[in-house]
Amino acid sequence: MAGTDRGREPILGGPAIILVEPQLGENIGAAARAMLNFGLTDLRLVKPRDGWPNPRAKALASRADMVIDNARLFDSTAEAIADLSRVYATTARQRDMSKRVATPAEAADEMRAAYQAGATCGVLFGGERAGLHNDDIVLADTVLTVPLNPAFASINLAQAVLLIGYEWFQTGGIEPASVTGSREAPPASKADLVHLFEHLEDELTESGFFDPTPGKKPVMVRNLRNMLQRAGFTEPDVRTLRGVIKSLAQGRRRRSGVGDAASKDGEDA
Amino acid sequence: MAGTDRGREPILGGPAIILVEPQLGENIGAAARAMLNFGLTDLRLVKPRDGWPNPRAKALASRADMVIDNARLFDSTAEAIADLSRVYATTARQRDMSKRVATPAEAADEMRAAYQAGATCGVLFGGERAGLHNDDIVLADTVLTVPLNPAFASINLAQAVLLIGYEWFQTGGIEPASVTGSREAPPASKADLVHLFEHLEDELTESGFFDPTPGKKPVMVRNLRNMLQRAGFTEPDVRTLRGVIKSLAQGRRRRSGVGDAASKDGEDA
Repeated sequence: MAGTDRGREPILGGPAIILVEPQLGENIGAAARAMLNFGLTDLRLVKPRDGWPNPRAKALASRADMVIDNARLFDSTAEAIADLSRVYATTARQRDMSKRVATPAEAADEMRAAYQAGATCGVLFGGERAGLHNDDIVLADTVLTVPLNPAFASINLAQAVLLIGYEWFQTGGIEPASVTGSREAPPASKADLVHLFEHLEDELTESGFFDPTPGKKPVMVRNLRNMLQRAGFTEPDVRTLRGVIKSLAQGRRRRSGVGDAASKDGEDA
Repeated sequence: MAGTDRGREPILGGPAIILVEPQLGENIGAAARAMLNFGLTDLRLVKPRDGWPNPRAKALASRADMVIDNARLFDSTAEAIADLSRVYATTARQRDMSKRVATPAEAADEMRAAYQAGATCGVLFGGERAGLHNDDIVLADTVLTVPLNPAFASINLAQAVLLIGYEWFQTGGIEPASVTGSREAPPASKADLVHLFEHLEDELTESGFFDPTPGKKPVMVRNLRNMLQRAGFTEPDVRTLRGVIKSLAQGRRRRSGVGDAASKDGEDA
């Protein structure tokens, strides 16, 4: 369907599309096209297999090369989503994780409302072969699953991006929701949350919380992160929790020479 | 996104997808995949440029080859739609034609209603280069246009088919395969929550967390309780949190040599 009106300004903005360990440059290019079809321009790449920049991505992107040129490269999913306050993880297979599941239409409505309230969002997509790692999904607030024929539920990366973009674009005509609700504090950024996780896990490691059986600690860490992620903490909540952890682990007044409270940067409530 | 459940029967039926003078076999194969993703199986081809059957279509269709194998070939659009009672013509550009225009979502609702009333429907897609001829569009009841970024409104044939299939599938009331995946634990009882609050507040009192200024502690306690209340913790969450508090506090006491860890009765996670 060829119908581009070259005189018009592209529609810009909207959720970040984060491709985690994508493999083929062609698929990154096709994803960029699908993004721009629906006005999405914030492309982020976590460890693309064939390095970056990738000439095959640019070739496939064709006139969506502005999305490719502005793509940002990250070493980890946590870094790629650090500035976002709401993150969705697209999965096809069922995962053993107690996390909210949304359809693209639901996610688009939620993201549009979040943008109208000044928050930023992103959607994680896994690599072509295996999808997202569980450790990436843990960092997301919500799992996003496209309803598909269960007997033939395999769609490619660009198609998954296309459907999310399509639903996002559909919500564009919606009038801003009335802002009469309770004045909520801003949601914590993913960077704040990851610092909270790491602070807690460091202290729990030191206090002997984790089961020393090999393989147990990662599972316990994932469960803790899932639980704290689900809680939907705000920025002030996270500051308070860091103070709580610091106080429990170190005490306000250090009572011994062991441990150095000053080395922890959790703020007091 | 790889998530096909090979044990399940494919969902069959729904509107016919009619490709009018498609050029590349690869695109026919990709369209067949997009169809089967959403349970569509009635593929009709009008004068495909490279003849039929086309091995490249079959190669691209991969496991959707049943759609390719059952595709029917026609010499004209009129013949291809002869048995249908409602036909949509997808176009990207505006045509000088006074015809009703529907979005994919509207068309899907109408087609679902038509099927429930025993009528049959189809959607016409033009060739890759120029789209549908005006003579084809004339045969349709309604023009179907995908809302796209006007500055970048070019999507490929398989993507257009994908979006129509997606909307059709949405009207079916079919749950996404993994909605059953999130097995929610029961919410914590208020008694469990209050015990959690008290445990935390006891330990924070001992660790010197609370501001000693008169009147400050009750406010801090109230804020903490509000925050933990809002988080919507489950029963297992509360057990985990009690274990976390116990571990952090005992770790501190061990390090400082103060207090008797055995006097605290926080449960382990």
